Amino acid sequence: MNLLLLDESDYIAPGLVRIAGRRHRQLLEVIKAEPGKFCKAGMLNGLTGTAELLEIGADAATLRPDLTVPPPEPSPVTLIAALPRPKTFQKVLHAAVTMGVKEFWFIACWKVDKSYWSSPNLETASLDETCRLALEQAGDTAMPRIEFRNRFKPFVEDELPGILAGRPAYAGHPAATEPIPVGSRGPAALVIGPEGGFTGYEIDLLARHGVTPVTLGRRTLRTEVAVPALLATLTAQPR
Amino acid sequence: MNLLLLDESDYIAPGLVRIAGRRHRQLLEVIKAEPGKFCKAGMLNGLTGTAELLEIGADAATLRPDLTVPPPEPSPVTLIAALPRPKTFQKVLHAAVTMGVKEFWFIACWKVDKSYWSSPNLETASLDETCRLALEQAGDTAMPRIEFRNRFKPFVEDELPGILAGRPAYAGHPAATEPIPVGSRGPAALVIGPEGGFTGYEIDLLARHGVTPVTLGRRTLRTEVAVPALLATLTAQPR
Repeated sequence: MNLLLLDESDYIAPGLVRIAGRRHRQLLEVIKAEPGKFCKAGMLNGLTGTAELLEIGADAATLRPDLTVPPPEPSPVTLIAALPRPKTFQKVLHAAVTMGVKEFWFIACWKVDKSYWSSPNLETASLDETCRLALEQAGDTAMPRIEFRNRFKPFVEDELPGILAGRPAYAGHPAATEPIPVGSRGPAALVIGPEGGFTGYEIDLLARHGVTPVTLGRRTLRTEVAVPALLATLTAQPR
Repeated sequence: MNLLLLDESDYIAPGLVRIAGRRHRQLLEVIKAEPGKFCKAGMLNGLTGTAELLEIGADAATLRPDLTVPPPEPSPVTLIAALPRPKTFQKVLHAAVTMGVKEFWFIACWKVDKSYWSSPNLETASLDETCRLALEQAGDTAMPRIEFRNRFKPFVEDELPGILAGRPAYAGHPAATEPIPVGSRGPAALVIGPEGGFTGYEIDLLARHGVTPVTLGRRTLRTEVAVPALLATLTAQPR
């Protein structure tokens, strides 16, 4: 926890918050907090700054936040990914949120196993927890938007053009020859296929709806490694 | 397993290999191999290509490899990292090997917990297994070199200049202002600090021995996410 992420409901009086549960335990264990010490803090979807620890007991802590600094810049990249297997989904979501992605579309396609859609990791409470942990890791406060679409064709034909709205979009595909561009300055979208890749039909449908197939080189990376590498490449700013 | 990694000892006759154990199980379960089918294959530290499955039983498979293609290009980046906690070490090593890193130096520093050095993950057999799995994932065959140095100062003063040999090297440091360069074309080195960062003394000693402190932005990433992102940034090739 690099930032104590606060909710409106944590306020017990103007300028005073009371923290219990997981965050209290992390204040105790990780930060070894003592009264008078400061930690980084931020309001969910709001400003960041510090919080002074006033009192810490066995069950809860009282702090005085002082929040004046905007959170870090969001990533300009929208992530559209074939729904990964549950454990990978968790890793990819956490990693991309720490890197500042604010818009996720997890979609069905031929090679997405139907069982993945019933994973408890996709339930609202689990998504919320994963995102909060990732925001705390990154020192960010802005909750991302996460959408799920369990039909590929209607998503691509009916929704994707509106999502992209003219933004460049790239999907890794073994048969492509063009590399992923380095340092897209404006908004862009990254489309991540399933293990084993999109089918020919799928990549063609994506290409007809504004997604450029790109080669990612000869190495096959795990999704949780490919996503940070591709997000970094797409947003790298050459001088 | 995207590539069946072969050893000289797998050969039972000229042009014929016999595979048992984990790789046999993966041929059965993951690839659902049947006689007459081909899979990607490669010789440890040698060429890649295909292998035709001739026979598969409950305990072993016999294949005929045909290896004529060099493995993918290695990464030009040498990774020097404060030894991470054992689970993170495993993830970082696997990720960086899939991205083609061929030279690793894991080093001590003030914030590396002494207990990390006795982790079974650092034993030769475990390193060998992690690297083989990563090579199989990436479709690579070239085993990396992995070194451990449990004293920071002698490493930096006595060995680092020879390792860098004039190559540019970068270490993430919160107080730095220069960003990590995009697309280093030649060999380079990436120096990864411990959780909580290098101390001021350590970053100064590194800087005096050829390592440029760079800022990685306001977001604090987990080591296993930072490494793929930084490797990708450092080797991105702007057009």
